[in-house]
Amino acid sequence: MAGNSIGQFFRVTTFGESHGLALGGIVDGVPPGISLSEKDLQHDLNRRRPGTSRYTTQRREPDQVQILSGVFDGLTTGTSIGLLIENTDQRSQDYNAIKDLYRPGHADYSYDQKYGRRDYRGGGRSSARETVVRVATGAIAKKYLAEQYGVKVRGFLAQMGDVYCKLKDWAQVEQNPFFCPDVNRLEELDALMRDLKKTGNSIGAKVTVVAENLPAGLGEPVFDRLDADLAHALMSINAVKGVEIGDGFSVITKRGSENRDEITPAGFQSNHAGGIFGGISSGQPVIAHLALKPTSSIMVPGRTVTIRNEAVEMVTHGRHDPCVGIRAVPIAEAMMAIVLMDHLLRQRAQCGNVIAAAPIW
Amino acid sequence: MAGNSIGQFFRVTTFGESHGLALGGIVDGVPPGISLSEKDLQHDLNRRRPGTSRYTTQRREPDQVQILSGVFDGLTTGTSIGLLIENTDQRSQDYNAIKDLYRPGHADYSYDQKYGRRDYRGGGRSSARETVVRVATGAIAKKYLAEQYGVKVRGFLAQMGDVYCKLKDWAQVEQNPFFCPDVNRLEELDALMRDLKKTGNSIGAKVTVVAENLPAGLGEPVFDRLDADLAHALMSINAVKGVEIGDGFSVITKRGSENRDEITPAGFQSNHAGGIFGGISSGQPVIAHLALKPTSSIMVPGRTVTIRNEAVEMVTHGRHDPCVGIRAVPIAEAMMAIVLMDHLLRQRAQCGNVIAAAPIW
Amino acid sequence: MAGNSIGQFFRVTTFGESHGLALGGIVDGVPPGISLSEKDLQHDLNRRRPGTSRYTTQRREPDQVQILSGVFDGLTTGTSIGLLIENTDQRSQDYNAIKDLYRPGHADYSYDQKYGRRDYRGGGRSSARETVVRVATGAIAKKYLAEQYGVKVRGFLAQMGDVYCKLKDWAQVEQNPFFCPDVNRLEELDALMRDLKKTGNSIGAKVTVVAENLPAGLGEPVFDRLDADLAHALMSINAVKGVEIGDGFSVITKRGSENRDEITPAGFQSNHAGGIFGGISSGQPVIAHLALKPTSSIMVPGRTVTIRNEAVEMVTHGRHDPCVGIRAVPIAEAMMAIVLMDHLLRQRAQCGNVIAAAPIW
Amino acid sequence: MAGNSIGQFFRVTTFGESHGLALGGIVDGVPPGISLSEKDLQHDLNRRRPGTSRYTTQRREPDQVQILSGVFDGLTTGTSIGLLIENTDQRSQDYNAIKDLYRPGHADYSYDQKYGRRDYRGGGRSSARETVVRVATGAIAKKYLAEQYGVKVRGFLAQMGDVYCKLKDWAQVEQNPFFCPDVNRLEELDALMRDLKKTGNSIGAKVTVVAENLPAGLGEPVFDRLDADLAHALMSINAVKGVEIGDGFSVITKRGSENRDEITPAGFQSNHAGGIFGGISSGQPVIAHLALKPTSSIMVPGRTVTIRNEAVEMVTHGRHDPCVGIRAVPIAEAMMAIVLMDHLLRQRAQCGNVIAAAPIW
Repeated sequence: MAGNSIGQFFRVTTFGESHGLALGGIVDGVPPGISLSEKDLQHDLNRRRPGTSRYTTQRREPDQVQILSGVFDGLTTGTSIGLLIENTDQRSQDYNAIKDLYRPGHADYSYDQKYGRRDYRGGGRSSARETVVRVATGAIAKKYLAEQYGVKVRGFLAQMGDVYCKLKDWAQVEQNPFFCPDVNRLEELDALMRDLKKTGNSIGAKVTVVAENLPAGLGEPVFDRLDADLAHALMSINAVKGVEIGDGFSVITKRGSENRDEITPAGFQSNHAGGIFGGISSGQPVIAHLALKPTSSIMVPGRTVTIRNEAVEMVTHGRHDPCVGIRAVPIAEAMMAIVLMDHLLRQRAQCGNVIAAAPIW
Repeated sequence: MAGNSIGQFFRVTTFGESHGLALGGIVDGVPPGISLSEKDLQHDLNRRRPGTSRYTTQRREPDQVQILSGVFDGLTTGTSIGLLIENTDQRSQDYNAIKDLYRPGHADYSYDQKYGRRDYRGGGRSSARETVVRVATGAIAKKYLAEQYGVKVRGFLAQMGDVYCKLKDWAQVEQNPFFCPDVNRLEELDALMRDLKKTGNSIGAKVTVVAENLPAGLGEPVFDRLDADLAHALMSINAVKGVEIGDGFSVITKRGSENRDEITPAGFQSNHAGGIFGGISSGQPVIAHLALKPTSSIMVPGRTVTIRNEAVEMVTHGRHDPCVGIRAVPIAEAMMAIVLMDHLLRQRAQCGNVIAAAPIW
Repeated sequence: MAGNSIGQFFRVTTFGESHGLALGGIVDGVPPGISLSEKDLQHDLNRRRPGTSRYTTQRREPDQVQILSGVFDGLTTGTSIGLLIENTDQRSQDYNAIKDLYRPGHADYSYDQKYGRRDYRGGGRSSARETVVRVATGAIAKKYLAEQYGVKVRGFLAQMGDVYCKLKDWAQVEQNPFFCPDVNRLEELDALMRDLKKTGNSIGAKVTVVAENLPAGLGEPVFDRLDADLAHALMSINAVKGVEIGDGFSVITKRGSENRDEITPAGFQSNHAGGIFGGISSGQPVIAHLALKPTSSIMVPGRTVTIRNEAVEMVTHGRHDPCVGIRAVPIAEAMMAIVLMDHLLRQRAQCGNVIAAAPIW
Repeated sequence: MAGNSIGQFFRVTTFGESHGLALGGIVDGVPPGISLSEKDLQHDLNRRRPGTSRYTTQRREPDQVQILSGVFDGLTTGTSIGLLIENTDQRSQDYNAIKDLYRPGHADYSYDQKYGRRDYRGGGRSSARETVVRVATGAIAKKYLAEQYGVKVRGFLAQMGDVYCKLKDWAQVEQNPFFCPDVNRLEELDALMRDLKKTGNSIGAKVTVVAENLPAGLGEPVFDRLDADLAHALMSINAVKGVEIGDGFSVITKRGSENRDEITPAGFQSNHAGGIFGGISSGQPVIAHLALKPTSSIMVPGRTVTIRNEAVEMVTHGRHDPCVGIRAVPIAEAMMAIVLMDHLLRQRAQCGNVIAAAPIW
């Protein structure tokens, strides 16, 4: 099927470009009877919103979402929910200079090879502005998961460049503009950001997302494993170059005796697996990490070519995030919530009547 | 949709358990007129086959594939291809001892939570034996990609434990039982394997897969990005805990000026992106890495519980691979080939008439 | 997958209710480089628009469509197209009287059984107002089919009550408010409508849709037959109770010698099959008929119950079409065009390289 | 997605040709814990089996189904079920004479236009032999629906040529080779069949399928309406040219006051709608009718052309059903059961928690 949808049962389809009139989406498969208003979506939209701190792009977008359907008398009706977010601060003129260039590290070249044309005013459909609809959709999923099952989906900045941010305090995450869970790293992060601003450069980052209280039994044993669907969803976020579940790449050097999660009558003794065995959730926290590349829109001059293959040197003067990893936190949460919600409904469909005899810890 | 299929246009659906009568699949969307016989599939099946070296499980399966439909007079007809591979060496009695246990690190527990029951004779549907159908399907995709577009999809063992295997020589990969591309690492690998056998333990691994000569323009800009679909497909392989595209997790510490792939009139000057920008192929080699955990089926005693939550110590005496990463090489190639083939057909559907003006290097 | 989408590759997803803020949709899979503007969609929207003659509902909706994305510089970009149509004349107060009733012949009761709630201000999601998005989408498909392949998709009113309308003149169809192809039936139709108005009743109708110049070879031999997909699409139109391809139900009394379409070197000698053999188009005109029931929203009193199962007599005073079959003509054309477009892209995906040796007449 | 699958959650994918080695399928989404054996499938397979009476093709196929996976210890495991049915009586030599011809009324010509080639030994993938897998799958759905919800899915021959068969007695349906529910019509049917045999001709038929005790609330209000999905499924059966729900085409001449199904506190007073309002089941019997064309494989000489467009006269001497409508009865039941089962799981996914306040009659 066409590529602008994700999810099988709980499913969002999106439209909209960086410099178009509006972005929007249709959320399908929402259970009826859930209390829902625009306010429920706005909180996460604000967390992702540009221009809220000096560390992110200065494009000013209110990102005010409208719910156009699917909610009546304050409750979801079970029918498709239309979402609309207008673009207000496009400043297309910023982009005229680069109209004929292939910005290195961007989708410009591959886009032209695919479609034979593109909206040169920005990343077009490749712009991370598209993720605004994901965040709004994720907020619906999060609300349902939390209210009906007590599931909590949260993320944080785990690393920026060489600065490691340990999960010291979930509350701290919402108290600083970096989504950093360790108050002791804030100064280093600030220093790094200042340096990037000064040098006109950017930096990569690692983000961690965690789902707690997820019921065991969600997922599938073969292609649509919960981890495979998470990998799909998280890798579909702009700038992501790697996804790990649980211990991820560190398992390469581990022995089986170290890595397996032993069980006692009190439950699992560790969570190297990140809450998923054989593609199915175990009831432990589901943990995923993602690696985000440094944005290629920087002020350091770089070589590229025009669409006529002429060599040029280019510098990006537009408004960009020096570290796209920061604002990726709410996006990653949203993508995880969408996947979990989808699998929850799928599980209900096939195994809704199952009463498992297995112990639950 | 149900979870035993992968791909939108080029699509395989599979069935079969570790200890059932047979495994099989249906491959849909194969273009007509392609020369195809069982021999074309057998080569990769033999590469994946157990019992071929002392480094892999001693379960002896000929893994002889039958094509039951979709091929007539030696050519594909365009209709669905039925594949069948019989199980011949199940030895179910091996498993009676563990019938009531949750093997740590395995899907047993989460499986029970999902379905309320399971085929306790082995991993059931979670067994890596299911991948035999993937490999056969991947061989069809590889053949088409190679013959029609010159695409070459190849993989190798990049790391096992602390032994790093650099891509020194593609030819070497097929000449040793490790799929190791560096002849100088074979002794270390052998020593590591001997040690694992002796200690009854297992080890993790890293596998790299590369597609060369892939046309630019394959993929989608939003959810069905080529990298997202690769992440899905590769993460759906048993034991995989992480997937990287191009430079993967190493981008976290990189500056934008280092990581962007500059372009000159001679083409891209580097390939940090792994051949994909904005979810769309660039014409450069597509590169993916995967991390495979050490198998949990080991002879080192481990704690677990019975289905009645009684503490037990368990040891696995069945036949298992000390490093599942080895045999994952042909599986990873197959999964990449399936994804590329699918996107090739998708691209033909939507953009079949596009003549891109962009330069091709 | 969730139920608000149709099509595999050319795919539309819709949202919006009869009495909500707006209706809209996302069209995915549109090939890039097609000239497209709102004007291209408005023509068919106007044909379907309510309030244009005294024979249709007097609800006044301009049905002005906005294209919010996917078109740049007048050409499609290949990315998803967001469509928006605002509701302007909802008059929700009309419906307060029936808030607690199950209107007989409507979806009210089954809707409540499914969702446990509904937007009682109108049919909610079951309202035929939703088809406005289908018509806009169909216009995109029609334009592409016509420009790239010369395909013409047209429909007409074939019967209303006992008045049979033969296909005498395609041009006449657009010159009367009934979409009637026979100028000699207009008076009878007018008389029938006057009678219905007077008696406050409604009548059923038959609509025929035809696609000419469609390439042979579109469709699939098994589940996704072209006729099966047409049946799905046409039966999904509000009030449709039957779908026929070609000679339809009249084949029941036919002998094989009468019904098969003989072939001579000049081509097919008849078209009983309606242009589809074995689910695949033959190059002859594709012909489908649909039966539409009389609307149940009438002024003739009828028995029903309240949501508390109390007997009541009800009369509908809202604005309704005495024959919903009239305005179904552009909707049926749209649904056929969407299916054909989808199969055209699918055919290009799998068999894009096929050069058939079969004769083309 | 590729065209050899049907259903979103309860989903079957099939392979196999008329003259290949075997036919088979994969059934996905089956709930775990259902008692299931080959015997459960064989009953319906025998009802559809050729060669059981003198009224059907004399091809002798035991149609013995094997369950290759997904069942363990007599219960479904929840994983995909592999089904295999071997071809034993292909007699390919029958077809050499027609290798280069386009049989009129068959898919030969459109098939060649699509794929550029075909298996000329029979209908290939277009053969109704493919429906054997549908019948086996339908038997799984029927069993589940019956055991878990008391749903009964049954069909009968409603008309053959000019012989009308009223639903007098469900029990009679299984007691004659015509699936005729009226014992008084058996002689006329026999006479008609003798005449067809003598003249080497064939006849069309009408089949009716009914589902009783179906819960209200199944279906969707827009594209995936229960009736639209039924239309798709039933029109995908070989030779079907028309599908009706409830009163079908007879609504064309009805007034709204006649056609709407009035409701009293005792429930619905009629069932013109065929148990579906606005695409959602009402709890009344779901009723569908299908029209099947007379087979084109007859002994009456007919005109056609060769693949080189040369005029020839052809006569079919192979073994064929003079009325394919007879054996269509179990196939139609199977397709209806598959659709109902799929929607039941879908309903559970989205609205599993809904407790409707609406009365149930």
